[in-house]
Amino acid sequence: MSMTSTNHDVVALAERLLACPSVTPATGAVFTALEAMLTPLGFTVDRFVAGEAPDGPVENLLAWRTTGAGPHFAFAGHLDVVPPGPGWTSDPFVPEIRGDLLYGRGAVDMKGSIAAFVAALADLPDDLPGTISLIITGDEEGPAVHGTLALMDRMAARDLRPDLCLVGEPTSSARLGDVVKIGRRGSVNMWIRVAGSQGHVAYPHLADNPIPRLVRILTTIEAEVLDEGTDWFQPSNIEITDLEVGNVAHNVIPGAATARISIRFNDQHTGASLIARIKEIAAVEGGTVEAKISGESFLTAPGAFSDLVRGAIRDVTGVETELSTTGGTSDARFLSRLCPVVEFGLNNATMHKLDEAVAVQDLRDLQRIYALVVERALG
Amino acid sequence: MSMTSTNHDVVALAERLLACPSVTPATGAVFTALEAMLTPLGFTVDRFVAGEAPDGPVENLLAWRTTGAGPHFAFAGHLDVVPPGPGWTSDPFVPEIRGDLLYGRGAVDMKGSIAAFVAALADLPDDLPGTISLIITGDEEGPAVHGTLALMDRMAARDLRPDLCLVGEPTSSARLGDVVKIGRRGSVNMWIRVAGSQGHVAYPHLADNPIPRLVRILTTIEAEVLDEGTDWFQPSNIEITDLEVGNVAHNVIPGAATARISIRFNDQHTGASLIARIKEIAAVEGGTVEAKISGESFLTAPGAFSDLVRGAIRDVTGVETELSTTGGTSDARFLSRLCPVVEFGLNNATMHKLDEAVAVQDLRDLQRIYALVVERALG
Repeated sequence: MSMTSTNHDVVALAERLLACPSVTPATGAVFTALEAMLTPLGFTVDRFVAGEAPDGPVENLLAWRTTGAGPHFAFAGHLDVVPPGPGWTSDPFVPEIRGDLLYGRGAVDMKGSIAAFVAALADLPDDLPGTISLIITGDEEGPAVHGTLALMDRMAARDLRPDLCLVGEPTSSARLGDVVKIGRRGSVNMWIRVAGSQGHVAYPHLADNPIPRLVRILTTIEAEVLDEGTDWFQPSNIEITDLEVGNVAHNVIPGAATARISIRFNDQHTGASLIARIKEIAAVEGGTVEAKISGESFLTAPGAFSDLVRGAIRDVTGVETELSTTGGTSDARFLSRLCPVVEFGLNNATMHKLDEAVAVQDLRDLQRIYALVVERALG
Repeated sequence: MSMTSTNHDVVALAERLLACPSVTPATGAVFTALEAMLTPLGFTVDRFVAGEAPDGPVENLLAWRTTGAGPHFAFAGHLDVVPPGPGWTSDPFVPEIRGDLLYGRGAVDMKGSIAAFVAALADLPDDLPGTISLIITGDEEGPAVHGTLALMDRMAARDLRPDLCLVGEPTSSARLGDVVKIGRRGSVNMWIRVAGSQGHVAYPHLADNPIPRLVRILTTIEAEVLDEGTDWFQPSNIEITDLEVGNVAHNVIPGAATARISIRFNDQHTGASLIARIKEIAAVEGGTVEAKISGESFLTAPGAFSDLVRGAIRDVTGVETELSTTGGTSDARFLSRLCPVVEFGLNNATMHKLDEAVAVQDLRDLQRIYALVVERALG
């Protein structure tokens, strides 16, 4: 027997989520709407608030349903959206279908994916053994400090351990299903500071200009080849993103100079190994380094899980899927500590843009793909 | 017959100038005080205001006296002083003699020198043939745009053309007369800008980071040897004085980067030749250059004029003088366009500092030296 009903039509579900304004961090109504969809499907829903200023508080939702002994399949996502900005054709928080598309902020990133997953749940056989969970944060587009990480703590406290996790981020590029992410590069920012000794430009022998030393450090960094890439990752890359001296006096040699670099790195490195390397380079010229790791890299090696997702995509759409590790970071960088993680969701062409929209047919296809993935994962 | 009187005692003259507050730009009372000293000595005094905001208006004083046919000897200086700042032992604008020293802002830089020159004038024989002039600005410590340059225009309009010029800046180092400046390096500031194309650090192939190109330009500039110095000048020197990108977003590749450099250069170069060279270096990486020449270099080749000044110093003090071209810029860079220029004045140890002071004996010795210089120059 299927639980499908008009209450769980994917377009209606997406519209209910899109109708709740939820610019990051998301709170209240949009979580209540999702809870109201999950409870009738037999899910236990645990809503909680985590963290304090400046990176909190953050509202989160953990839901799970266990039907006999079996694997634990988790779906992860977020209900917050980036600000719509001015210039939309229709109200970004009043979902509207025009032609084949459903418009609204979050249509593809990622309320549409959440709606597709909930609709898929309603399609599943009642007797599928195992646990299904939803790991839903209200802060993925913001600092992301008290969102998915707090949900992982909450799961651990409840002894909920997923065996597989699908993150519903919009990974598709030209057609639904053409790209699935099996990893992400890590990200680390570093501030390289060189201190010197201030003085008058007419008497350079009485000063110690830090800028030439910073320039030498940056020259070495620019020449640094971190790696040549791997089978699944493009080469790690260093960008110098800022220079700062702040010396307004034309006749003064400044006392300090700072550069900021951003490294996107593959699984040949860790944040710590890169910080050590940059510190080594900077030290040659007396520079010091402060660093902030935004996320480590991860890779879910191609295999059973990615094959399962590709098969479901092929069966529904006929599309051959490319496995990718490109792009920015996502909360998958945290979830990958728990189990194999694959990211797959809607077409990202309008993500973070004006008139964000999803094809109605993509919502229906994604619902069917997600249903096949869960059924085969637990079956 | 000498015009010397108690009205022209060098210490009294210095005190009268020091008692007039004249933080740059100097105006009013201090000029009136100087005019009152010069008129009884037979000088024609032309006071005028030049320029408009932001670098003006500036008050200036031109004085001259012609006694028969002969050379024209000019004395140049300034009545403005740098701000005293807090912490003086006695009021910086209430001259006070303690021990052997006369204290007051401007005691050495350079009201004391002006007083010594005026006192020297009173000592000169009446029948010395030629012209003596004073070129006195109220803005040497500030922008210096409408000061000495305006005075030079004023002189040209009156067909006054000096044959020799002595600038009374405090050039002495350890003892009065130990250092005379016969030249100064030039100064030019340049802004090197590299434009790129902004983008996300995760997609560097879609952006064009200008920073590595700026770093390469600066590396080439750091390796540039402008010259090895000359008999009279130290090597020209380039300092990188500022770096500016102003990129606050950690995940953004910036669209432009700027560096500022300051070059102090000897007479092997001109401001224009250096701008051309830096433009050439910057162009290799697509950088553009804006420049502002603060002053060209100049050299009064050692010879008759510097020998005359050294001889007068030796005769009064017994000191052997070093001819120098070191240090910052002075208004001599402008006056050198007119005639040979030598700079000689009081001990600069307390210049621009708290409790600026001049030795009373130095004032008296400087008066005698200046009198000998003028007498021998015109004689």
